[in-house]
Amino acid sequence: MITSSSNGKVKQVIQWQTKAKERRSAGIFLTEGFKMFEEAPEANVQEVYLAASAEEKALSRPDLSEKLKRTGYEVVADDLFAKMSDTQTPQGILCVLKRPEYTLDQLLNAEKPLLVVLENLQDPGNLGTIVRTGEGAGVTGVIMSRQTVDIYNPKTIRATMGSIFRVPFLYVDDLAETIQKLHEKKIHTYAAHLAGQKYYDSFSFIEGTAFLIGNEGNGLTKEIADLAGEYLKIPMEGQVESLNAAIATSLLMHEAHRQRHSKKRRSTV
Amino acid sequence: MITSSSNGKVKQVIQWQTKAKERRSAGIFLTEGFKMFEEAPEANVQEVYLAASAEEKALSRPDLSEKLKRTGYEVVADDLFAKMSDTQTPQGILCVLKRPEYTLDQLLNAEKPLLVVLENLQDPGNLGTIVRTGEGAGVTGVIMSRQTVDIYNPKTIRATMGSIFRVPFLYVDDLAETIQKLHEKKIHTYAAHLAGQKYYDSFSFIEGTAFLIGNEGNGLTKEIADLAGEYLKIPMEGQVESLNAAIATSLLMHEAHRQRHSKKRRSTV
Repeated sequence: MITSSSNGKVKQVIQWQTKAKERRSAGIFLTEGFKMFEEAPEANVQEVYLAASAEEKALSRPDLSEKLKRTGYEVVADDLFAKMSDTQTPQGILCVLKRPEYTLDQLLNAEKPLLVVLENLQDPGNLGTIVRTGEGAGVTGVIMSRQTVDIYNPKTIRATMGSIFRVPFLYVDDLAETIQKLHEKKIHTYAAHLAGQKYYDSFSFIEGTAFLIGNEGNGLTKEIADLAGEYLKIPMEGQVESLNAAIATSLLMHEAHRQRHSKKRRSTV
Repeated sequence: MITSSSNGKVKQVIQWQTKAKERRSAGIFLTEGFKMFEEAPEANVQEVYLAASAEEKALSRPDLSEKLKRTGYEVVADDLFAKMSDTQTPQGILCVLKRPEYTLDQLLNAEKPLLVVLENLQDPGNLGTIVRTGEGAGVTGVIMSRQTVDIYNPKTIRATMGSIFRVPFLYVDDLAETIQKLHEKKIHTYAAHLAGQKYYDSFSFIEGTAFLIGNEGNGLTKEIADLAGEYLKIPMEGQVESLNAAIATSLLMHEAHRQRHSKKRRSTV
């Protein structure tokens, strides 16, 4: 059992928790909690740490104990584990995972892609919620400008509730160029925009579709908004001027899901 | 200009910022920022504080300066204002407001009510987002169990983006009894629930409607779920098991809006 805070691995994890740059240069990210460990692709698991008080619980569950045997793990004293954890009430299991690598070609070559394109989104919770809701709505990929919040931020990872393992995503240096590539692939792009004249549910999202979503405070930059194939609007009553970015994105993604699965949805009712 | 941290008003505001109980017993809440001041109902404004560095900006805007003249305000040294503020980068204006008082009768007697009923929701951001999205979707009221997070939490107020001034809301001691009153008023109740067999967009929300939404981690209690008139489900692809509470609520509220405004929505496209 690791009990010393001068242990090299412990020091490394603590540094990774707070420094996005260090995580990036090591090509890793951290997850916490049993659900995340359960859902983590085994091939990407590099290190697993168990708090001493969580070991018995973990080993008592056959599925977890088998996976832990295969991945290996180290037990850490509880007080030390608390320092390694990003949460106030740690569940007692922390993983170091290799980052997945997706290419733009993969994202563009999905069958009838349903993409979310995020320009400079800043809130870690919003990004995580978009990834989680996106998986549920059948999104095939998330493309982000380089200035978008780090998807490996611990808050973002928590908010994805495991969807980070399953939704392909990619940061791109030149978002305008990427949107042009979407157009070359006949993927239609839509921006929720004040200039939109038609409501979002009056468009068809059956073919390849990408929703362009801007920064929480400022929306899309003019450069990116100008590239959008269509502007759409989301109805707003009262004095509401805008919606939270994750809410707006979710309404669009679920409208696409509704249209794409209307037969299946009708047949099950 | 107030410059001393021993000033009674300053000490009081600092206490109100952190202590929900003190805010409650004083019957007040705090808002920050220019947008919130602009939208605050003037009759409810009790005190206004301006950071010294924000005074010129505030007075240079005719609408703000007129309102400030009518409400009165005190100028506070910047370092002291920073202590009174709940935000890391204060905008320099803080208001003390009298709490609005809504009754259950008011909420139930709206024309074809569209209500959101929250049982033990815990995340301040989720609550604020539901109020904000709710105003946009035409929600006529939000009813909360007593154990739901404080709507006057500074994070909740920020997340409402001003909708807290316009959406009627009420905490109730006995949520089960309240739901029975909804039923007596012919308001149909719907719970998003794993036992739901029909998708949410296969119900009609044209008549009086209330959506029952549970705690983020545990969902609705059995007692409340058992009272729901109908269970509905939201489609989820992949391995997603649930949605964020604010996202699920928003999808339901906007489906109700779609049904209630379909004529208007068609005629504008």
